[in-house]
Amino acid sequence: MTYQVYDTTLRDGGQREGISYSVADKLAIARLLDEFGVGFIEGGWPGAMPKDTEFFRRARTELDLKHAVLVAFGATRKAGVAVGDDPQVRALLDAQTPAVCLVAKSDIRHVERALRTTGAENLDMVRDTVAWFVAQGRRVFLDCEHFFDGYRHDPAYAASVVTAALDAGAERVVLCDTNGGMLPSQVTTVIGELVERVGVPADRFGIHCQNDTACAVANTVAAVEAGVRHFQGTANGYGERPGNADLFAVVGNLQLKLGLPVLPDGCLEQMVRVSHAIAEIANIAPDTHQAYVGAAAFAHKAGLHASAIKVDPLLYNHVDPTVVGNDMRILVTEMAGRASIELKSRELGLDLAGHPDAVSRVTNRVKDMEAGGWSFEAADASFELLVRSELPGAEVARPFTLESYRVIVEHREDGAVVSEATVKVRVRGERVIATAEGNGPVNALDEALRLALLRHYPQLKGFELADYKVRILEGTHGTGAITRVLVETADNGGRDWTTVGVHENVVEASWRALVDALTYGLARTPAA
Amino acid sequence: MTYQVYDTTLRDGGQREGISYSVADKLAIARLLDEFGVGFIEGGWPGAMPKDTEFFRRARTELDLKHAVLVAFGATRKAGVAVGDDPQVRALLDAQTPAVCLVAKSDIRHVERALRTTGAENLDMVRDTVAWFVAQGRRVFLDCEHFFDGYRHDPAYAASVVTAALDAGAERVVLCDTNGGMLPSQVTTVIGELVERVGVPADRFGIHCQNDTACAVANTVAAVEAGVRHFQGTANGYGERPGNADLFAVVGNLQLKLGLPVLPDGCLEQMVRVSHAIAEIANIAPDTHQAYVGAAAFAHKAGLHASAIKVDPLLYNHVDPTVVGNDMRILVTEMAGRASIELKSRELGLDLAGHPDAVSRVTNRVKDMEAGGWSFEAADASFELLVRSELPGAEVARPFTLESYRVIVEHREDGAVVSEATVKVRVRGERVIATAEGNGPVNALDEALRLALLRHYPQLKGFELADYKVRILEGTHGTGAITRVLVETADNGGRDWTTVGVHENVVEASWRALVDALTYGLARTPAA
Repeated sequence: MTYQVYDTTLRDGGQREGISYSVADKLAIARLLDEFGVGFIEGGWPGAMPKDTEFFRRARTELDLKHAVLVAFGATRKAGVAVGDDPQVRALLDAQTPAVCLVAKSDIRHVERALRTTGAENLDMVRDTVAWFVAQGRRVFLDCEHFFDGYRHDPAYAASVVTAALDAGAERVVLCDTNGGMLPSQVTTVIGELVERVGVPADRFGIHCQNDTACAVANTVAAVEAGVRHFQGTANGYGERPGNADLFAVVGNLQLKLGLPVLPDGCLEQMVRVSHAIAEIANIAPDTHQAYVGAAAFAHKAGLHASAIKVDPLLYNHVDPTVVGNDMRILVTEMAGRASIELKSRELGLDLAGHPDAVSRVTNRVKDMEAGGWSFEAADASFELLVRSELPGAEVARPFTLESYRVIVEHREDGAVVSEATVKVRVRGERVIATAEGNGPVNALDEALRLALLRHYPQLKGFELADYKVRILEGTHGTGAITRVLVETADNGGRDWTTVGVHENVVEASWRALVDALTYGLARTPAA
Repeated sequence: MTYQVYDTTLRDGGQREGISYSVADKLAIARLLDEFGVGFIEGGWPGAMPKDTEFFRRARTELDLKHAVLVAFGATRKAGVAVGDDPQVRALLDAQTPAVCLVAKSDIRHVERALRTTGAENLDMVRDTVAWFVAQGRRVFLDCEHFFDGYRHDPAYAASVVTAALDAGAERVVLCDTNGGMLPSQVTTVIGELVERVGVPADRFGIHCQNDTACAVANTVAAVEAGVRHFQGTANGYGERPGNADLFAVVGNLQLKLGLPVLPDGCLEQMVRVSHAIAEIANIAPDTHQAYVGAAAFAHKAGLHASAIKVDPLLYNHVDPTVVGNDMRILVTEMAGRASIELKSRELGLDLAGHPDAVSRVTNRVKDMEAGGWSFEAADASFELLVRSELPGAEVARPFTLESYRVIVEHREDGAVVSEATVKVRVRGERVIATAEGNGPVNALDEALRLALLRHYPQLKGFELADYKVRILEGTHGTGAITRVLVETADNGGRDWTTVGVHENVVEASWRALVDALTYGLARTPAA
């Protein structure tokens, strides 16, 4: 029996505070999930959400899924209404997906207090709706909402909902920990009891966990260990409140820790790429510390570890990071010391082995700068420039020297907001003054600097500011607040690099990161 | 037998990418952990880290702990050196703490390849160092590094380290999942086998889990369910790579889900306050989605739920949020609709029940603004101003009207960076022009605006800009990048409020948030 990897990033994931997908976002995410090899993609709730109706319409012509089956989500029929007369049910059918997932109440308190109907009518709603969709040729999953709370309150009623759905032809009945309050041992116990009570094997059940006890991944794994073969989760654990089970961690654990073949061959190593791409589309900063896929998931910073890692890297990683498309990283920080500086430099192609003085100078400068709020952990290009400046023969030419700049932002009487920057620089002996406008002060400054340099460095045309991040470091240490800016620059050859700038003034911090970005890029890119 | 809640935020937590505590930070965090009622606070590694040596020196006079015992961390003696001659061991003794925690290798591969000594010598190092500290009157904990990996590779050797430590007088031997690769079922199995093999009850063991499988909390709970009574974790799960077991989630689960009395009375409800205060000190943005303590941990946004929650809130939360010092929140978003707008307004003291037109206008404006990048989820004050502007009789007076402003940032030839802002406003019929300097463009603008208004609104003197956050929203949807600014303002009466501003220009976005902040504050604060 194969495992059913069921993704609900597009529905449950959209409940996360801060997420609001467009239809194009949803299509792009569906393609990524398919590349990751999930078996089912729950696309949304047609009828309830206009965007979702539109998604399913466009999916029919625009999505060409290789691994996944598209699923539309909806509810069982309303109380007292025939299935075929319920517009929400019709909308679900009209989504024309091979499978549907129906949510039903399985906690008698929710039936009576929220749905305001009887336990018996709720069972009829389940039976009728499941049977109707089966008769229409659909594969049917039934999500038992609040199953675990309901089971603990009234096991007989919760079990009767499961039985009703299975008898009516549901392919799987999914046990949902909707409030997310369970622990793994409780999940194991309830599933064991349910198998006894209902008299079907656990592989007829599915599992859907929320993360309110920080155990959603563990609860999902526990259910699979108890025999469940269908598990639901979301990319990066996106979801309401603390979120859903993170599908990446669940899949990583099942495949790499328990040896279960849950994904098609070749898909596991897409994990990091798919995770980060979905984060970009959802416009959520990727979680650096996320298990398996985070940029820090295999990053080592303690000096102690960094030196031992040279001896045997696999003794310090729980899995080989490349298996999920991640890398081991050495972080440049004050705690790391000389060994990490050397290791990190080697990673960047600079061998410091024969240059103990350079290692000392770099280590001291990094320590001083970090004390002032700099951080090179995410800014390899700035770090490389720093190392090269201390390594005889490896220095990078500075493309210009700054005389001064000025940025003006005006909110004019007519309401228009305009930004204008002037830079005065010396380029190859020539004094150049350039002025440009921009969307904001940093953009104006970037434009003016490029304009000033362009005649001497035409290859600048291929550089693009790909990402810009601002972090305010609190002035909790007696200093004023400091601004740290990260700039990611991409060139038209598909390369990108990140630089950092720090200053109490956001414009000056941005300037420093921009200057490093252009300096680094020009050093790598010969004139056309 | 009581439970030992052992915190290592100050040592292991400091390994997290981006954390760098000062000594004052460490003292402040220790006080907070004590207020939360932990039994042990591991303060650092004296000798190895100069800051930590200083911390223990100052702790002797500056820390007055009510619940917690201070612990110094160190390693067993070096191979081939007498315990008393090892300077690292002496530094540990000199920390003068009632308890020490020694780290020892328990994976024979690490003994041989990283430590480069023999299994027998390692056992002697454990025995000698534990016995020496016991003889000095210290309580001794022994952390078995890489225990689970080591046990799975060579159970006999790993068990022999445990036995050596217990025989030499260690109070607890802590089983560390250093690489974080375990699942709960594996933790349960190994502990069960170890109890058999070593012949002591599980309450002689401790547990220390890293989060590389996203199961650190569940693994810790599993160990406690297997009989372990000493568990280690960090505030908010701070730690290397994906971090350590989050002590807050562990404590919440043990106390609220398993009914185990792990904290002193009255401490559990400090959880949210302590969690957020430690995040502030560590200078890590609190994780909105963290279990139990996150601002979104009990936040509901789906329209479906929001209306049902009115019926019976406890059916929709896994625990009563107030038990851990949290609140239920209703989020204002496009998905929530009218019910949430009404509920949220009531939370703010505005009854919209009799004003369906106002609800429609607010809902429509929120939808439009959210489509443009605004978010009111974290900006209650801006939301309240918006609701009041649509509710007849509840409007807030605008304290001024803007004519224009201009901000200049200059990097001068001498390297000085200066910011200057001029605002032209109309206040109570008077045209006022004011110019001020600042650390950066936004600070200059804030200063100039206050200067312009101060004569008419002297109560502005009591307002302080408490926090300022910038978020760049990617232009992935065909629009340019947009900047969202959150401003938190505090007054001298201990109140604070948050406002939001959105624009493609960071200065204008900040301006909008500042104007809301002053407008809201002035409406609440009568002139002195």
